[in-house]
Amino acid sequence: MKPASAATVLYRGTRALRTRAEILASAADLASADGMEALSIGRLARELRMSKTGIFAHFGSKQELQLATVAAAKEVFLAQVVKPSLAATRGLPRLTAMLENWLRYVERIVFRGGCFFAAASLEFDSRPGPVRAEVAALCSAWLGALRDEIAFAQRQLQMSSVEAPSQLAFELHSYVQEANWAFKLFDQKKAFSFARKAIAARLASAVRRHPKHAKKGTKK
Amino acid sequence: MKPASAATVLYRGTRALRTRAEILASAADLASADGMEALSIGRLARELRMSKTGIFAHFGSKQELQLATVAAAKEVFLAQVVKPSLAATRGLPRLTAMLENWLRYVERIVFRGGCFFAAASLEFDSRPGPVRAEVAALCSAWLGALRDEIAFAQRQLQMSSVEAPSQLAFELHSYVQEANWAFKLFDQKKAFSFARKAIAARLASAVRRHPKHAKKGTKK
Repeated sequence: MKPASAATVLYRGTRALRTRAEILASAADLASADGMEALSIGRLARELRMSKTGIFAHFGSKQELQLATVAAAKEVFLAQVVKPSLAATRGLPRLTAMLENWLRYVERIVFRGGCFFAAASLEFDSRPGPVRAEVAALCSAWLGALRDEIAFAQRQLQMSSVEAPSQLAFELHSYVQEANWAFKLFDQKKAFSFARKAIAARLASAVRRHPKHAKKGTKK
Repeated sequence: MKPASAATVLYRGTRALRTRAEILASAADLASADGMEALSIGRLARELRMSKTGIFAHFGSKQELQLATVAAAKEVFLAQVVKPSLAATRGLPRLTAMLENWLRYVERIVFRGGCFFAAASLEFDSRPGPVRAEVAALCSAWLGALRDEIAFAQRQLQMSSVEAPSQLAFELHSYVQEANWAFKLFDQKKAFSFARKAIAARLASAVRRHPKHAKKGTKK
């Protein structure tokens, strides 16, 4: 028997990739870098060395493929950012964990194009339809989760209630998005240290402004 | 003589558009919404009701068209954001004007896809080449201009020198980018009020922390 040629080995290797989940992992990675519009069935077929028909069997249309890719990216975000944050106590500790886990997910380049949702939301914001609606709903849910955690921390007197939770959530969210943007565009790791300092200072000021802490004499 | 038909009027109207500058205004608007990759000569020809050859005469390649579009968007940014800010006194007043003029340019939808550079930078951050290099250089110049104005304000004792100018510039820049992102994705005007409050509070804290102001008894 002849030994397997490189091509055959490669063929066997790529065969193993031909599951729906694995197509989607590639799709999310590709979309984060080149955009969801670049996510054609033909392009994916070339990237995965599959036939167009093979991919078409899983996803009947480009839009179906895009929606399935968003769903796959959501699972990654849940597993890598949301779930680890649930280990932290509710309120300020969990809020801090959510932001830090989000930063780490960008920093370790889970998707080669940076945060999948930052890329997808900027790509689809001017394109009405189900993909835009789903991306907007997921981004809104994440912002809402930050806001809810702030409100919880306020009710637990961990933070000043002077702050509107939606205002503080806007600012904290903006630091991570900015870090993602600057890291991708300028290839500077320093963006993460800017974001971490901004988050720490902003949270410290939200805590400091609480009367309970002022009474304790944390300030002269 | 027969009166001009609607088609003829339209034809004369579109004829007038056939200047390089006008092609580029359309190109920048289109790119801000659908991305620079969507900016094919064919697509522009359809949008402007011109022949492909007519556009090709101005821009020999897609990349040339993309670079010319970036240059056109830069001129718009200079005219609408940078130039009006130069009317303000250097230092804190000019910094405030730069941020406010940037917000207004996003708010009044100069480009239908929001800030041209926010869209272009997120689209091109994973695509090395001259377009990415130019977009990154322009974004870097704007961040640098904010940073320089902060440093000037600090030297003039208008602001605390405790703040690293690059850190403060990162935070202020992030609020406007976040407003652009949230406005485009959620269609919420509220994003601008979040950004304005964040900028005002952040600048106030940078001013308050200055010993000169503390001595003046701005705080009890």
